Amino acid sequence: MDDRPIVALAVSRSVHAMMFTDDALALLREAGAVVGPVEVATPEAVRPLLAGATVAITGWGTPRFDEFLLTAAPKLRLIAHSAGSVKPIATEAVYDRGIRVTTAAAANAAPVAETTVAMMVVMLKRIPWAIRQPWERKRLQQGGPIRELRDLNVGLIGASRVGREVVRLLRSYPRLRVKICDPYLSPSDAAAMGVELAPLDEVCRCDVVSVHAPSVPATRQILNARTLALLPDHAIIINTSRGSLVDEAALLAEMRRRPLYAYLDVTDPEPPPADSPLFHEPNILVTPHISGGMNQAQKDMGRLAIEQALRFLRGQPLEHEVTREMLPTQA
Amino acid sequence: MDDRPIVALAVSRSVHAMMFTDDALALLREAGAVVGPVEVATPEAVRPLLAGATVAITGWGTPRFDEFLLTAAPKLRLIAHSAGSVKPIATEAVYDRGIRVTTAAAANAAPVAETTVAMMVVMLKRIPWAIRQPWERKRLQQGGPIRELRDLNVGLIGASRVGREVVRLLRSYPRLRVKICDPYLSPSDAAAMGVELAPLDEVCRCDVVSVHAPSVPATRQILNARTLALLPDHAIIINTSRGSLVDEAALLAEMRRRPLYAYLDVTDPEPPPADSPLFHEPNILVTPHISGGMNQAQKDMGRLAIEQALRFLRGQPLEHEVTREMLPTQA
Repeated sequence: MDDRPIVALAVSRSVHAMMFTDDALALLREAGAVVGPVEVATPEAVRPLLAGATVAITGWGTPRFDEFLLTAAPKLRLIAHSAGSVKPIATEAVYDRGIRVTTAAAANAAPVAETTVAMMVVMLKRIPWAIRQPWERKRLQQGGPIRELRDLNVGLIGASRVGREVVRLLRSYPRLRVKICDPYLSPSDAAAMGVELAPLDEVCRCDVVSVHAPSVPATRQILNARTLALLPDHAIIINTSRGSLVDEAALLAEMRRRPLYAYLDVTDPEPPPADSPLFHEPNILVTPHISGGMNQAQKDMGRLAIEQALRFLRGQPLEHEVTREMLPTQA
Repeated sequence: MDDRPIVALAVSRSVHAMMFTDDALALLREAGAVVGPVEVATPEAVRPLLAGATVAITGWGTPRFDEFLLTAAPKLRLIAHSAGSVKPIATEAVYDRGIRVTTAAAANAAPVAETTVAMMVVMLKRIPWAIRQPWERKRLQQGGPIRELRDLNVGLIGASRVGREVVRLLRSYPRLRVKICDPYLSPSDAAAMGVELAPLDEVCRCDVVSVHAPSVPATRQILNARTLALLPDHAIIINTSRGSLVDEAALLAEMRRRPLYAYLDVTDPEPPPADSPLFHEPNILVTPHISGGMNQAQKDMGRLAIEQALRFLRGQPLEHEVTREMLPTQA
């Protein structure tokens, strides 16, 4: 009889195939008796997996761990989430039972940051607009200056994991002045990152402004009519975080008034209504929430979740825990 | 009377405004008597500037230094070019007279490489296609996989300045296998760069193939029907070098046969004919030769040319000389 700890892969088959490599799963099978995945991760399908499970590995689509699931999971000690935000699964009841929770947000930060910085380069060069019109530099420049990512002020709202990864990538570009606002960042931490801690309004006066904050009440529509009015002409606005951070109506109004360029990988709501004016504003680029892990980076997220499970089973400290206290400031 | 050496700014006023900052020009004025620019850099306008000049600072649009100019420039010892390719200005007659030539290609390499790597990220994420169609991931993925710049083979044709800068930028991305082909690169140099020296055919089997070679007879249509057939499905092709390196008819034929994606910042000829099929192939992105310095990076190029002039006037060794022997392998 297998008396090893039970690890429940509490995800549907499609998420399982997306997130976990054979190599990572083999490591998990050495450490525990693995059950799951399920065909479709409904509460009813996931519940029986949890009986006897010490660890649940969760992911996109895993149902919330409410009383219905938790009463069936008396031995559960760890939820290792393979996606970024643990809010869809973690409840007060989870923490009340002393179950610990980890996030794979760190592995998702890299692709989001890479997309963000690549879009800075590409939008400054006006490439999204160049590929839509005739081969003509002068005409392209009439729409706005063709610039490089150097000798500019870059403003970052939020020193989140993604924000920090953006800072790291920006080090490859010469003579940028990076200003960051974050109520949880100290001036000395900012200095250690090689950036300048600045008030929100100063960040909004930069040539490029990118949002990397969690969706919490304090950040709701942090880019609004007042803060958007601070942006210089020809500023570039990037949102790869959450749609709620930008007042889209105010953005549209400001962009119709003067030259600004925006990339929105996230919107509020998602998807936007089919007749949303966002789709018809030539200087707004909209993509369907793809900046995070969609392919190889998803395997990194799955690997990170499995690593947390392995660390727990070996009695090692967790690296990516989200405690009850941290939850309100998490994305 | 000013007996300082004469430095001729042998460029037109518009190029002058583009390339040289007041700070850089002030340094030049401390070291020499500066003449120029001219309204429009015709041979007739530039010729009188050169009388007595020890150094000519040249740039885009400066006429070729043929007998007409050189006979009027008996004291000329250095041509410090503020653009990348010196071929439009340097002649055999220049070298015959012992005049030395420097290039600003090093300062142009950074923006070209930045554009190249940003386009790798953005094209792998399918962003250029996402922004053209409804907010729908599934539909986007039907056109090809949404990927990240990691766990992939990246093939570089040419270890030029740009190629080396691309290698440097790629270090920020995890688990890439970078293969490079260049007849002038040794395996130990490649190893020092952290890349693998490989034959052209192996480079063409990579998931991303980017061209960074000079336009010389040996590289003409190096991407042709045979080498393009080696690319895996869904490969990404980037040309930010010179249009002559890609057989565009073969590219079009191959892209109509199977899923491939191409970014061409350069074409042959430039601009392409208005009715060119390049503009109508959905998986080909064409921009009007803008990946190099267009704005802030042009000031870097101007500064580099002025620095070479200053080094020469101070008797210091030149850093960016193009000798007669180097010319055939230069872009």
